[in-house]
Amino acid sequence: MLIRDLGERGLLKLIQPYCLPKTIGDDGAIVHPPLGCELVVTTDVLVDGVHFSDRTTSPFDVGWRSVAANLSDLAAMGATPLGITVGLSLPPDLPVVWLEQLYAGMQACLQRYDTGIIGGDLTRSSIITVAITALGAVTADRIIARSTARVGDLIVVTGDHGDSHAGLQLLLDPELGRDISKFTNTADLEQHRQILITAHQRPQPRLDILPLLDALAERLRQRVRASAGESFPISGMDSSDGLADAIEQICRSSGVGAILNRSMLPISPSLSQMFPATTVESALYGGEDFELVLCLPASIALELVDLMGKGAAIVGKITRSPDIILVDDITGSPPIYLAKAAGFQHF
Amino acid sequence: MLIRDLGERGLLKLIQPYCLPKTIGDDGAIVHPPLGCELVVTTDVLVDGVHFSDRTTSPFDVGWRSVAANLSDLAAMGATPLGITVGLSLPPDLPVVWLEQLYAGMQACLQRYDTGIIGGDLTRSSIITVAITALGAVTADRIIARSTARVGDLIVVTGDHGDSHAGLQLLLDPELGRDISKFTNTADLEQHRQILITAHQRPQPRLDILPLLDALAERLRQRVRASAGESFPISGMDSSDGLADAIEQICRSSGVGAILNRSMLPISPSLSQMFPATTVESALYGGEDFELVLCLPASIALELVDLMGKGAAIVGKITRSPDIILVDDITGSPPIYLAKAAGFQHF
Repeated sequence: MLIRDLGERGLLKLIQPYCLPKTIGDDGAIVHPPLGCELVVTTDVLVDGVHFSDRTTSPFDVGWRSVAANLSDLAAMGATPLGITVGLSLPPDLPVVWLEQLYAGMQACLQRYDTGIIGGDLTRSSIITVAITALGAVTADRIIARSTARVGDLIVVTGDHGDSHAGLQLLLDPELGRDISKFTNTADLEQHRQILITAHQRPQPRLDILPLLDALAERLRQRVRASAGESFPISGMDSSDGLADAIEQICRSSGVGAILNRSMLPISPSLSQMFPATTVESALYGGEDFELVLCLPASIALELVDLMGKGAAIVGKITRSPDIILVDDITGSPPIYLAKAAGFQHF
Repeated sequence: MLIRDLGERGLLKLIQPYCLPKTIGDDGAIVHPPLGCELVVTTDVLVDGVHFSDRTTSPFDVGWRSVAANLSDLAAMGATPLGITVGLSLPPDLPVVWLEQLYAGMQACLQRYDTGIIGGDLTRSSIITVAITALGAVTADRIIARSTARVGDLIVVTGDHGDSHAGLQLLLDPELGRDISKFTNTADLEQHRQILITAHQRPQPRLDILPLLDALAERLRQRVRASAGESFPISGMDSSDGLADAIEQICRSSGVGAILNRSMLPISPSLSQMFPATTVESALYGGEDFELVLCLPASIALELVDLMGKGAAIVGKITRSPDIILVDDITGSPPIYLAKAAGFQHF
């Protein structure tokens, strides 16, 4: 069955079970904001052929990824999700099952983070476009901004970087990595492939660490007896456009620079074994890992990394000098100036 | 200059002046919701060739209309706007001036209603797609729902209906209406054309009447000594998909029917003179007039129409019988059952 066979009302009926009850069916959805919170609003548009394609991404994964991208933006602001709206444009000759799978993927990701779809719009177009707006809530004293990184802060990165980009390469070229001779058995190879592909298809927005950040910030406040109005001691953003891009954005917004240590970059064994020649490039510029890049005072940065174990790494330090420099304290090779981040430019 | 010549950062720089200050530049925008308010969220997606085209709509008007559609949804819920996000997909070979005009149109409409752009996303696509999400605030006791129309309520419609659709016809066929012999001078003809075309290009969301509705509801509450928890005595929605569709949606949601009076339909002299053969069809099914269709207890319905003069009309009454019937008390012609509203179906 195709989209055009169902008609607008049929489609709405199909979508309804995937949405939070009582939110659909009026001109707008009603959301009850938690008392005393600021709202965070973020929008992401995904276009078929630009951000996903049938070759690499099932409709379920398109749904998952588009939700994950938006929830990651909320996490990057320190905000807890209140719900999302979905503005969909679909070709009339698209199979209905594609739409069902898309919503199933969105719902699966949303449910994991205890939130849901509260509204949207559905229209025809010649190209599939998924425009999601996510709403979140954060108290004013817990907003994670890009612009408040301070000289001396350590830069902590959650998760591994470069895996999503490597996974996409593997999906685009199924022959890639199949002939790596050093893998003695194909089970190892297959496991690494799967780790990288899953990183691309099912990214996990880091809403899970917000309570940890709150607790650390609170501990720091008590320790230094911070005055009430002071901004959150943790700044940062997500790494959706790449780790290097995130650090550059933070530095530009905060009027600071950074020194990064190549040997500390968070690289998975799967990435380094499958793509030994391009590991660092993938980690710095790959993008779409949807992890957090955070700048914290040294004391709580160390605590954070202690608590998260292999889930987080200190990759560098915020400097007064506005340059962003990559050093390598193992090989001692000359520092590289990351003057211009080569994050993915849409145009 | 084309979109692809500017690059993503160049485009963001271009767009920034059209956005509210301090909202752009982080992963999400921060909105401070008014204390004690519910949030209303609404999303509309407009696609080139489906909702607008160069033949009929300048980029400025695309911007105006896309904002107006969303603000109209807020008005239909009784909500005051807090801001919008704009998710744009654009072909790389689009002239930059198109984008500037789009934002100028959005800003002009937003400023009229004292609100602005707080965030968004920008990506490339083969087709122009404008996905807007609007945020508004309303106190819980002032929400205008579709589902609370009561038997005996009068149906009040703001503004004229059918003009927008007629304006679109004139834009699509410049020869249309030029040969109407009864116009003794071309100035009259041109004035009527312009009224209809403006109705299509620059619809005015009816946020202006919310204070009036609040005052009337308050007066009614005092008169009948309503208990505090009772829902707003005014129900309804906007007429974006046509007057008949709005009435059908309200009746279905509320489990009621309606009787409409053909002679009371709000039809402008411009529509009846330019399109005498299709006046009633345009008024009932034309759509995109972005007026409000409200159901109110008789006493305040009459007050509303008194206060608004020609700006509002009582078109019918909510009935227990679930049918929606159009009668004509002037010609006395047999009643027509509007069993199935022929509002625009997107698929």
